[in-house]
Amino acid sequence: MFEHQEDEPILVLDEDQIWSLLEGTQHGRLVTVVNGRADIFPINFAVQDRTLVFRTAPGTKLAEVAVAEQVLLEADGILSDQAWSVIVRGDAHRLETSAELASAESLGLVSWVPTYKDNYVRITPTELSGRHFRFGPYPERELGEGSEGG
Amino acid sequence: MFEHQEDEPILVLDEDQIWSLLEGTQHGRLVTVVNGRADIFPINFAVQDRTLVFRTAPGTKLAEVAVAEQVLLEADGILSDQAWSVIVRGDAHRLETSAELASAESLGLVSWVPTYKDNYVRITPTELSGRHFRFGPYPERELGEGSEGG
Repeated sequence: MFEHQEDEPILVLDEDQIWSLLEGTQHGRLVTVVNGRADIFPINFAVQDRTLVFRTAPGTKLAEVAVAEQVLLEADGILSDQAWSVIVRGDAHRLETSAELASAESLGLVSWVPTYKDNYVRITPTELSGRHFRFGPYPERELGEGSEGG
Repeated sequence: MFEHQEDEPILVLDEDQIWSLLEGTQHGRLVTVVNGRADIFPINFAVQDRTLVFRTAPGTKLAEVAVAEQVLLEADGILSDQAWSVIVRGDAHRLETSAELASAESLGLVSWVPTYKDNYVRITPTELSGRHFRFGPYPERELGEGSEGG
């Protein structure tokens, strides 16, 4: 799935690759900025029709800020020899109609805190970016050009 | 290490618990805000004298923004039945003296992108927060008071 150009440690992901990674992930981090101050919250999310949906308790700071301004959601996966990171920038809005809520309920979302939660927030992406990283030896270790290492 | 009050899904971590988790982690996400716009970058970091140090390529956006404003660093760990998340708010500055650089070099930091990097940035915390989450059944599933479930 991740075909790097030879010797390129970073692969810029396309939209399909980004959505495929987001669909296979449930944990992410939501970044909000209110009055110039950033906050970050761990969340569980689900993908629905190329939007992201998460669930939060009513009245929490998260519920308030998530709908206040543009948000970022980051998800990543880290293995010993490779990693990926995907960032979604988008507009958040709280789901309110019964059709929207029924649709969100069907996702079976759970949140990090097992308290009763009846707010759902949907993030509609305005910008997607993703990178796949192939870890390798540092160039400091390869002083000779063309060296393939051990 | 994480003693929750009975039935409390969230444990607020103290400073020692937070540093212990940060010391046992190397991957995190750096959040910067420049002109009201947030960005988030996956990074590797190390703890040194209750500060956080990371390495980045000179001339990158990350190198520029990391020293421009207050930053956040988030790290988390997620298991099937529990999770933790730690957030450090702090001031970032690029290391410049040879003593500072020698000290940072000794950490053996590697970054996600294996290119030559000679910038080190240190985050001095101004605010620490951390939570440990114990996942459990949702209250919706426990309609009878005192039910212990299965």
